[in-house]
Amino acid sequence: MKKHNFNAGPSILADEVIENAAKAILDFNGSGLSLLSISHRTKDFDDVMAEADVLFRELLHIPDNYKIIYLGGGASTYFYEIPANFLGRKAGYVNTGVWAKKAIKEAKRYGEVEVLASSEDRNFTYIPKGFAIPADLDYVHITSNNTIYGTEYHEDLSSPVPLIADMSSDILSRPVDVSKYAMIYGGAQKNLAPAGVAFAIIREDMLDRIVRDLPTMMSFRTHVENNSMFNTPPVFPIYVLKETLKWLKSIGGVDEIYRRNKEKAALLYDEIDRNPLFRGTVEKEDRSLMNICFVMAEGCEELAPEFMEFAKSRGMVGIKGHRLVGGFRASCYNALPKESVEALVACMQEFAEAHKK
Amino acid sequence: MKKHNFNAGPSILADEVIENAAKAILDFNGSGLSLLSISHRTKDFDDVMAEADVLFRELLHIPDNYKIIYLGGGASTYFYEIPANFLGRKAGYVNTGVWAKKAIKEAKRYGEVEVLASSEDRNFTYIPKGFAIPADLDYVHITSNNTIYGTEYHEDLSSPVPLIADMSSDILSRPVDVSKYAMIYGGAQKNLAPAGVAFAIIREDMLDRIVRDLPTMMSFRTHVENNSMFNTPPVFPIYVLKETLKWLKSIGGVDEIYRRNKEKAALLYDEIDRNPLFRGTVEKEDRSLMNICFVMAEGCEELAPEFMEFAKSRGMVGIKGHRLVGGFRASCYNALPKESVEALVACMQEFAEAHKK
Repeated sequence: MKKHNFNAGPSILADEVIENAAKAILDFNGSGLSLLSISHRTKDFDDVMAEADVLFRELLHIPDNYKIIYLGGGASTYFYEIPANFLGRKAGYVNTGVWAKKAIKEAKRYGEVEVLASSEDRNFTYIPKGFAIPADLDYVHITSNNTIYGTEYHEDLSSPVPLIADMSSDILSRPVDVSKYAMIYGGAQKNLAPAGVAFAIIREDMLDRIVRDLPTMMSFRTHVENNSMFNTPPVFPIYVLKETLKWLKSIGGVDEIYRRNKEKAALLYDEIDRNPLFRGTVEKEDRSLMNICFVMAEGCEELAPEFMEFAKSRGMVGIKGHRLVGGFRASCYNALPKESVEALVACMQEFAEAHKK
Repeated sequence: MKKHNFNAGPSILADEVIENAAKAILDFNGSGLSLLSISHRTKDFDDVMAEADVLFRELLHIPDNYKIIYLGGGASTYFYEIPANFLGRKAGYVNTGVWAKKAIKEAKRYGEVEVLASSEDRNFTYIPKGFAIPADLDYVHITSNNTIYGTEYHEDLSSPVPLIADMSSDILSRPVDVSKYAMIYGGAQKNLAPAGVAFAIIREDMLDRIVRDLPTMMSFRTHVENNSMFNTPPVFPIYVLKETLKWLKSIGGVDEIYRRNKEKAALLYDEIDRNPLFRGTVEKEDRSLMNICFVMAEGCEELAPEFMEFAKSRGMVGIKGHRLVGGFRASCYNALPKESVEALVACMQEFAEAHKK
């Protein structure tokens, strides 16, 4: 049976990316060697890094005064490295749930943290707006999309201080004005790559704002200056990231994927809003295009396990909601085909029909 | 033409491991999903982690009071995390070259470092022995095998203080008495996996010796307590590591691979010693079984580029010596077949024959 992969991350990648990855493992570029067995200090891998750089810049319109790095670890590594590098006195954080909270917790080790806004009062079901950003902060940090609650910023924030965004779960899913950010970072295991690589796009002048003498591996300067090759980088995940960028370009780039993502999300949110058995959990204007959260409607709660089983029997994978929200979460990342959303919608309709009163 | 992969790392993996990796990417365990697209929080991946744990323990006879963790980053990450966790006052380091030096540099940020012994006086061509280890150190750190200079400890050190060893390049290549170590760690991209995962084997009581309140991701306690799942682990590299452990067990385990490694190394060192055109660079008793370094003999130095070309024409890959040593380096990791060493030896013999005076 065809599987519809709604995993929240690691998550679906394009079929051709997966096929190319398998091929490269058996024979990389006709070299007679596996991609897993080559040195990272070879022309072939330099080419992979260079191609990824060109594609990433092109797709996201990254200005020349930004550098892209790829490291092991994940966003959780950046949660402490960002304040270690940039938090001298005080930073501002916006609290939109679990990931923001983790970032805040680590930042407090390095200096004062001002929580500029929070949506905790309503279990993180919306994105706070209209808050002031004091001009004396070292930086302000946001999580552009929250995978657990299914909230997403739909506009780039304007900030008088360097704006740093964790875009782990919505990078390259929509156009972003990179010039409004001092740094964009994230784990790559949603829209870009398998687990095992984290990316950062850093405006060069931020390297002059590093406030501490840090262990070599913790300083962003190290990785920028060494083009992510200070130590052995995660070769295979970076290769798959490059293949994903290539795929994204081939289908029309960020504008096209944004159109598709809006279309997929509209299909599913419309069904959630229309179907009497379900309801969405997030303020409509802040609904994520990537992680679509819904629960059984009031009075139908007891049907949840049955719907889960029914959906599974139709090939739906990974639609269990996070335990902090409950219900269901359909992650609709870039590589998820519209057909999978249609299949889920059909499931919901059929289920509602079967339970008509 | 058949390639003989002598890369220093990332390096050769067994053919069946590579084949299984490619298969799992196309369809993991008959799930209809790629290994690259599954959640790390699934029964299937729990099974991968559990199987890796059982195999690693069995192959290296790891006692029950040790925990194994797998993280992103590499040995370079551990270079600062080890002193951050364990260096309260003073630690001892043995300097056997580049990697030890990097570890020493990072440790100095956290406390006093006493270099107990060094082989720098003769360009790191031997392993220092017979040095005293003061009983008041927080720990002593060694690099069990130096990939660049081709030196290796052939006996487990006895230490009155916790012994920590970077075994990036010789883990599972020979029997080790794990109980003599407080911690064994390394990047996995030589004998275990592709680039992108670093392992550590930590004696449990070391977690009570953590001297600092650290960022969550930097504390070894976090990763032990969360079974390497505090954040998304590098799923694919861990899977390949598990497959490599399975392969190693299938061929007879560490005793058998040690026999093969000694046999391969003897073949090549014998040729180096016998062949008038070449000479080894390391004290015989400290020669590495993993990284075999040699240069042109005195008076023949100008033949080096010609030999390099000749070897390449015969399918040899990755035999250029590190720039700090020059000459040649044949890395003969676990997965390198004896036939590749024989092919290199044949190359050397043929080259010598052609240059007979």
